[in-house]
Amino acid sequence: MKLLDFYVDDLIKNALQEDINYIDTSADLVIDENDITTAYFEAKAEGVLCGLDIAIRVFELLDKEFKAKVYKKDGEKVKKGDIIADLSGHTLKLLKGERTALNILQHMSGIATMTNKAVTLCKGTNASVADTRKTLPGLRPIQKYAVTVGGGKNHRYNLSDAVMLKDNHIDACGGITKAVEKCRENLGHMVKIEVETRNLQEVKEALSTGVEVIMLDNMDIETMKKAVEITDGKALLEASGNITDETISAVAKTGVDIISIGALTHSVKAFDISMKIK
Amino acid sequence: MKLLDFYVDDLIKNALQEDINYIDTSADLVIDENDITTAYFEAKAEGVLCGLDIAIRVFELLDKEFKAKVYKKDGEKVKKGDIIADLSGHTLKLLKGERTALNILQHMSGIATMTNKAVTLCKGTNASVADTRKTLPGLRPIQKYAVTVGGGKNHRYNLSDAVMLKDNHIDACGGITKAVEKCRENLGHMVKIEVETRNLQEVKEALSTGVEVIMLDNMDIETMKKAVEITDGKALLEASGNITDETISAVAKTGVDIISIGALTHSVKAFDISMKIK
Amino acid sequence: MKLLDFYVDDLIKNALQEDINYIDTSADLVIDENDITTAYFEAKAEGVLCGLDIAIRVFELLDKEFKAKVYKKDGEKVKKGDIIADLSGHTLKLLKGERTALNILQHMSGIATMTNKAVTLCKGTNASVADTRKTLPGLRPIQKYAVTVGGGKNHRYNLSDAVMLKDNHIDACGGITKAVEKCRENLGHMVKIEVETRNLQEVKEALSTGVEVIMLDNMDIETMKKAVEITDGKALLEASGNITDETISAVAKTGVDIISIGALTHSVKAFDISMKIK
Amino acid sequence: MKLLDFYVDDLIKNALQEDINYIDTSADLVIDENDITTAYFEAKAEGVLCGLDIAIRVFELLDKEFKAKVYKKDGEKVKKGDIIADLSGHTLKLLKGERTALNILQHMSGIATMTNKAVTLCKGTNASVADTRKTLPGLRPIQKYAVTVGGGKNHRYNLSDAVMLKDNHIDACGGITKAVEKCRENLGHMVKIEVETRNLQEVKEALSTGVEVIMLDNMDIETMKKAVEITDGKALLEASGNITDETISAVAKTGVDIISIGALTHSVKAFDISMKIK
Amino acid sequence: MKLLDFYVDDLIKNALQEDINYIDTSADLVIDENDITTAYFEAKAEGVLCGLDIAIRVFELLDKEFKAKVYKKDGEKVKKGDIIADLSGHTLKLLKGERTALNILQHMSGIATMTNKAVTLCKGTNASVADTRKTLPGLRPIQKYAVTVGGGKNHRYNLSDAVMLKDNHIDACGGITKAVEKCRENLGHMVKIEVETRNLQEVKEALSTGVEVIMLDNMDIETMKKAVEITDGKALLEASGNITDETISAVAKTGVDIISIGALTHSVKAFDISMKIK
Amino acid sequence: MKLLDFYVDDLIKNALQEDINYIDTSADLVIDENDITTAYFEAKAEGVLCGLDIAIRVFELLDKEFKAKVYKKDGEKVKKGDIIADLSGHTLKLLKGERTALNILQHMSGIATMTNKAVTLCKGTNASVADTRKTLPGLRPIQKYAVTVGGGKNHRYNLSDAVMLKDNHIDACGGITKAVEKCRENLGHMVKIEVETRNLQEVKEALSTGVEVIMLDNMDIETMKKAVEITDGKALLEASGNITDETISAVAKTGVDIISIGALTHSVKAFDISMKIK
Repeated sequence: MKLLDFYVDDLIKNALQEDINYIDTSADLVIDENDITTAYFEAKAEGVLCGLDIAIRVFELLDKEFKAKVYKKDGEKVKKGDIIADLSGHTLKLLKGERTALNILQHMSGIATMTNKAVTLCKGTNASVADTRKTLPGLRPIQKYAVTVGGGKNHRYNLSDAVMLKDNHIDACGGITKAVEKCRENLGHMVKIEVETRNLQEVKEALSTGVEVIMLDNMDIETMKKAVEITDGKALLEASGNITDETISAVAKTGVDIISIGALTHSVKAFDISMKIK
Repeated sequence: MKLLDFYVDDLIKNALQEDINYIDTSADLVIDENDITTAYFEAKAEGVLCGLDIAIRVFELLDKEFKAKVYKKDGEKVKKGDIIADLSGHTLKLLKGERTALNILQHMSGIATMTNKAVTLCKGTNASVADTRKTLPGLRPIQKYAVTVGGGKNHRYNLSDAVMLKDNHIDACGGITKAVEKCRENLGHMVKIEVETRNLQEVKEALSTGVEVIMLDNMDIETMKKAVEITDGKALLEASGNITDETISAVAKTGVDIISIGALTHSVKAFDISMKIK
Repeated sequence: MKLLDFYVDDLIKNALQEDINYIDTSADLVIDENDITTAYFEAKAEGVLCGLDIAIRVFELLDKEFKAKVYKKDGEKVKKGDIIADLSGHTLKLLKGERTALNILQHMSGIATMTNKAVTLCKGTNASVADTRKTLPGLRPIQKYAVTVGGGKNHRYNLSDAVMLKDNHIDACGGITKAVEKCRENLGHMVKIEVETRNLQEVKEALSTGVEVIMLDNMDIETMKKAVEITDGKALLEASGNITDETISAVAKTGVDIISIGALTHSVKAFDISMKIK
Repeated sequence: MKLLDFYVDDLIKNALQEDINYIDTSADLVIDENDITTAYFEAKAEGVLCGLDIAIRVFELLDKEFKAKVYKKDGEKVKKGDIIADLSGHTLKLLKGERTALNILQHMSGIATMTNKAVTLCKGTNASVADTRKTLPGLRPIQKYAVTVGGGKNHRYNLSDAVMLKDNHIDACGGITKAVEKCRENLGHMVKIEVETRNLQEVKEALSTGVEVIMLDNMDIETMKKAVEITDGKALLEASGNITDETISAVAKTGVDIISIGALTHSVKAFDISMKIK
Repeated sequence: MKLLDFYVDDLIKNALQEDINYIDTSADLVIDENDITTAYFEAKAEGVLCGLDIAIRVFELLDKEFKAKVYKKDGEKVKKGDIIADLSGHTLKLLKGERTALNILQHMSGIATMTNKAVTLCKGTNASVADTRKTLPGLRPIQKYAVTVGGGKNHRYNLSDAVMLKDNHIDACGGITKAVEKCRENLGHMVKIEVETRNLQEVKEALSTGVEVIMLDNMDIETMKKAVEITDGKALLEASGNITDETISAVAKTGVDIISIGALTHSVKAFDISMKIK
Repeated sequence: MKLLDFYVDDLIKNALQEDINYIDTSADLVIDENDITTAYFEAKAEGVLCGLDIAIRVFELLDKEFKAKVYKKDGEKVKKGDIIADLSGHTLKLLKGERTALNILQHMSGIATMTNKAVTLCKGTNASVADTRKTLPGLRPIQKYAVTVGGGKNHRYNLSDAVMLKDNHIDACGGITKAVEKCRENLGHMVKIEVETRNLQEVKEALSTGVEVIMLDNMDIETMKKAVEITDGKALLEASGNITDETISAVAKTGVDIISIGALTHSVKAFDISMKIK
């Protein structure tokens, strides 16, 4: 997995301590601590798997003797009834980690599945699907990773790594051209600039400044088409603003380069996966 | 707010550091650091507000001179166009905190709104709506709090504070009665026991052990009605298992005491609130 | 051990860093870092062992080649001169960890030994011995665990998992009945309520509200007996208030269900165990 | 207070989060969050107060409007019935912080009281009373501070700041002289050396090496007297080994310079202080 | 200051706890805790000031009554004897914070001064001066910030925010063109690519891939000139590799766009500033 | 290594997270995650190696299959072209850890090399070379360790473990004698006292108090010689104040015992070591 192991470990330990601040009053009192068993993850719907390494790591952190046999991997499609992995280890530890593992696995697979649907709807066009900074506190790394597993691309990671000049920045500087100039004065040479635009007038002004990316904010299909025409490949165009499964195809066909969707990370539907003890 | 201030502060600082690991390459380069402005939160849909104190705290942590004037409070219903609060402070800090504040506010209001809908659908019955442990890693306190703001009740907080004997525990002990007995041997006197049941046979056995709560797992309406009849108030009954807005009314009318819904925390739809600079 | 491994590891690392903020100016300067030796833990008095896994973990965290051979385990009685475990590893690491390991082992064994004495004094009665929230900052998990190892039971873990209505809560609401009612309005269905009472009048009122547990605060033996009579099994009764080895038997014989003792965790006498290098 | 504020704050926050991992199921559900009240700390026995600033800080961290009026300060003697401080603030926050504040205050005052007794028993002699490294994990700073408040002195803080050559170090080097030489080769010029001795032979050898301090380990009164004679002021002498209130006077009269007592920090009896709401 | 306040606070607290793990054995024992005094920072050499806000924050964290009157600010040139700021507060806290404040202030001012010298040597050319990732562990934010205060620009902050394809990446992919292609497949649209080249052949290949930036690694002046000619503004050129005060002017005159210098952060000479108590 | 493993691990993890807050946009996108390779560290100049264990630990933390074969060890002299260690593991992980490993290794070797030069210049005299508290925030343990590896000795670690009475302390007490007396009243018996002096008058007064160490602050060679004469071995003498490679020999020859140098830790020149992939 691309994420740093110790970021993942900290996320898991934090989640486990939320769930067990002292002991497990159910399992610790009724399960023999030497009891060994096997269990498995099973998909309960159709979607794209994501987060399996992290779910498995939950049990590894709890049980040094835990072993997993994996049948599917991140990015792979699963359908209802598919066995994703066999898990074996101490019954007590499997029960203690179950909820934490599933909470992460279902959330990440939910994101990958939603992203994949959007990517599929854009097939045959030039448009790629991107995430946003509309993530949940503390979960940005796993959410952004899940978007790529679903076939999407990552927009800027955070405020530190790329410039996005929005109306507030622009107004404060007295226009797009001035804002871009002011920004460039002190900007490092490895940072790209994107400018948010609300109409074709602004697209033209942004274009004249030579910025790398122009965002078309909540424009209708016709306006987007004209923006593509005007831009003519001199900047990347990003469509943004409440784009849904119903509207995404039409947006993609306008010729924009990127479609960014906040819902991929702010309104995730958990993907149903269960863990069963044999 | 009931949550500990420093839990909330840590959550916010963590989120801000995800979003700004160094500087804000947009605002820090184009906004004058002495610039002062006013902004406001505006509801873009109809729902229940939740998390306003936390959203405001984001700006307080960034800007010692930040002030908010609040028009709505947690638990209050808002409709599209409602102004929730006026915000005034340094433009630079308002822009740095905007995304983090909205991410939290939209998520918590999303939970409160969903919960409130479920509670409304149970009106006129005896049933209360409860959450589960199906929360996102690191977010359990704010998610559980949001459920109560929406009118729901909290199920056990975690594995340490109440017993839930599921099939795996029961099988390992050789039956419901034995599992409950074993558990009681070492259990503290302040901890309640709930037993998960899959049929009326099990409901009866659970009832005979004198446990405080019995979960009816994925039962149909008719079976639930019979369980209510059999139980006759001798234990609390909790209905559980993929209960949706479509099915909840019928479940509530069976006479169960609690309906628990994982989706309240694992499949949250962000509630749309925007922040606008005047 | 029931406690989460990483809670224990953090506790140990914290303790080691208190004790070695840089280097060990004794051992690091005079002991050859390749030197290997064996040592052992020896009981210097009679009591109940507790914390051995944690003491051993101290050395495992310092020395990847450390090995322990264990002769006694948590909960077992030891007497003066008993060898508890043989330890082998790098001399340097054994010396660095010695004090930290013993500090934890002696404290936990001290709690288990004190608890065990109280439990023994209640034998033949119905009363179980319970701890309180009068624990030392940061040590609640190991202190509560040690109480169970000594044969005691855990009272509520903290303010979040069970309700205890004390005089202050009751006065603020205008009486026991009103306080219990107000509490139930918003309380989750998995949480028990205990009411603190100072006289039989209050016991009766508490009983009429149907709460699960009633605390008899600092009552004399005769009053407790009457409270047991009045209650007649309709609620659990907890005796509390400076109960000592001298008075506990008489309290237990009144028929109360639980005797809670703050001294088990707030006034611990370390149990003497030494570590000797062969 | 001499301790760093943020060490103290972290200790308190950690303790509060042990006690409230989510909400206070008693106070949060029955107390009006705007309710204001006053309370006070009252001594229930005779002893030396310690930790009052920290106890007060608990409430300051919970309640921005909290105010305390202090009648006694750290190091002052209190007797049963003395009012230590008046506390005023939100009822809800006073109730949430009560247990955490008292746990710390009672523990620190317990240490100061025990230390003060030992110091008093040494009056008229040359001997000062010192603590050891036998502290509880995470509590060394407040425990060592409480010893000084009780009139004792601090032995080395940890393994990094002073050398103590014990039998294991000495055996590994082939004798006291060789161990001291080896240590001095690399030791910084600001670090003192103490050597542990078990008989007068060893005292003489230690003396000949010119170390600053010699520990007399578990020696009888007569041997200690001879050690004092032999040493004749050329090194400081520290008596150590299960010294109790019964034996300390005789030890002090031998003429040793320091008497170190592990029980001051490893077997603390909480000093009884209560918090009452008016 | 652009850095997040709580990053800065954590850095300071960490440094103070390194310096005071318990008490200050000098000041705490001899200074009256109510003693108030004034002090000042004085420049002992000529250079560019940086880190003053952080140095002042050290005292604010230690002393709620601390006040500073500032005469110079970050980025301003100071010469020997200049008074930078007057400081007033508790003597005890001024002494406790002195070393920590100066360690940070001298390091940051050292970086700003060195950077400013390099920038001055490039005057009249097109070249800007940039830092690298050759920073000290934990200090990247303050080191990168100090570079900008000295007039330099920040290269990529870390491995996550911009691509730099070095020989190892290129060899693993089978050439520059293939490496760039492979990278672009999955790269987010807001991330720039830089390719490291060792000769003009590689410059040409890099140029043909359309990457935004080309690094000229350890090339001689003549080769760099040719690279500028060949590139003709189609990409930014960055000169890199042991560039010193002696060689930087000649490099800048070749027409490269950026000169990056590791020594700005890995070989910092502290800038001499003293703190004197009046 | 003498430093605690988990201190080192935390330092490394912190550094890696500064460098990779999400993914490595270069290596993660172009390197096959199963690719295995070998690399080596090579010295690019002459000096003393330090920090190799930590540099290797960087890769161990990233890659469970990483192996190193070490040819030089901490404290050993290396010259240009020497191979220090062979490294083998996943290409992806070697590339991710390279910069972090080198940043630490170069910094620590830089300190050891500078220290070694100073020590060499004092050869044939009685003087040892010591560090100061002029360290960088968060790096004190590795900086102080590197000084010892270079042949220097550690001055006090921090404010908690030894007393240094400076002019401010002395002035506040009304003279050297009074300050030393006041300090001794409450000082533990394991702590040494050093007094800072500015002239022979003060040396004499300090000497008369019997303190263990006297600092000669910024004195000229002749004055230092006289101080040595006056002191006549009754206290250790420490020379301090901007001592450089040019002046250190003459200072050492005056007969002082210790020469302390701030530049060893506050103005480190990185020692050039490269990592090359075969």
